[in-house]
Amino acid sequence: MPENPAPSIEITAFEWVPSFAQGQVRDLRARWACEEFGFPYKVRLISALERPEWYYDDQPWGQVPFLRDGDVDIFESGAILLHLAEKAHALPAPGTQERGRILSWLFAAFNSIEPFLFELAAVSIFSRNEEWAPLRRPSLLEACRLRLQRLETALRDKEWLAGEFSVADIAMATILRSLVKAGGDDDLLKSHPTLSSYLDRATSRPAFARALEAQLAPFAQHDPRQKDPV
Amino acid sequence: MPENPAPSIEITAFEWVPSFAQGQVRDLRARWACEEFGFPYKVRLISALERPEWYYDDQPWGQVPFLRDGDVDIFESGAILLHLAEKAHALPAPGTQERGRILSWLFAAFNSIEPFLFELAAVSIFSRNEEWAPLRRPSLLEACRLRLQRLETALRDKEWLAGEFSVADIAMATILRSLVKAGGDDDLLKSHPTLSSYLDRATSRPAFARALEAQLAPFAQHDPRQKDPV
Repeated sequence: MPENPAPSIEITAFEWVPSFAQGQVRDLRARWACEEFGFPYKVRLISALERPEWYYDDQPWGQVPFLRDGDVDIFESGAILLHLAEKAHALPAPGTQERGRILSWLFAAFNSIEPFLFELAAVSIFSRNEEWAPLRRPSLLEACRLRLQRLETALRDKEWLAGEFSVADIAMATILRSLVKAGGDDDLLKSHPTLSSYLDRATSRPAFARALEAQLAPFAQHDPRQKDPV
Repeated sequence: MPENPAPSIEITAFEWVPSFAQGQVRDLRARWACEEFGFPYKVRLISALERPEWYYDDQPWGQVPFLRDGDVDIFESGAILLHLAEKAHALPAPGTQERGRILSWLFAAFNSIEPFLFELAAVSIFSRNEEWAPLRRPSLLEACRLRLQRLETALRDKEWLAGEFSVADIAMATILRSLVKAGGDDDLLKSHPTLSSYLDRATSRPAFARALEAQLAPFAQHDPRQKDPV
């Protein structure tokens, strides 16, 4: 057996995205977990601008990440995080409070926090020129504020959401990090210092920095505005 | 040991909700899973109209369901479904494609389908009198249509999302079922016959009927408009 076999894990990511999305694409979560757990991985790059039709067979919505781990195909970053945590034996045993807490916060990130912030990004960025966007924004901001206030109360003086650092923190930190500067929505985070410190703590981890660097690396090379790269 | 010990599982649900929400509240998912797995459960009822302040310690957003299983507390219906499936030994082994498929579809339901339909319910019901709601509706309907089309393509001629019937189907079926008649949004389902049959198949299961009946049972008794129930 070779000492350095080819990685069994392959993450599908975008070869290039516009600048506002750089460092925000969701394959960051899969990369971050691999870095935390010490799993080497290879990357399959696809075009975000022209999603290949065959890719919808792997990922029903044409989004990234998609993870192939040997014979196992997984889509949805939450499922990928759980798979990687199980592979790393980083989850407490089934039926324990410790595991229940991680599962609760993992789903909370994806179902109770991200949808709010995703809609806010739509209003503030993607659809900002639509007639309805500025009309919707005040009540949505208020809903986001209330939700983040509840999250702050739940986090209190805890270092991480569920005991030790876990995949739930990878999910929540990448979601909080998506509060966009362009729409002024990062004020939401500034007005919640507990969440702001939590995010700083998470993104100070060396594994996060490596994951971020790895996501950004191919973008310069595949910039469609740069036909003849230097 | 008694032959019928008190159930270890307690589900927190609402004692009453307005008619449009009756049969739609998310504790249905936890009840349905318990019925499928043959787990007896008791119920703790709280007021939806005046959420008790102490309840936020159990469930950060004040929502239902919250599940207590012996020493284990879990919130978020996705986490509760996973916990119950693990308790029932109804999940394939970690690291298998079969498990990966269930995890992928479970998170897909909560992160890639529900947020679209939840926003649609806001536009069509909860916020329908806001100035922005009718302006937002057409593009949102189009986004929902595209997402459901992709889901239909992924489901194709499969009976269930991930091999055998699983908690991913409990999640997806309850989410599809939330397409509301009041807003005319159930046309979305009618125009996707594959999804419509899938939902019929899921809700024809006896465990679903028992769960639904159990959710509805307390509502008549706690109707706030009926001070002197007959």
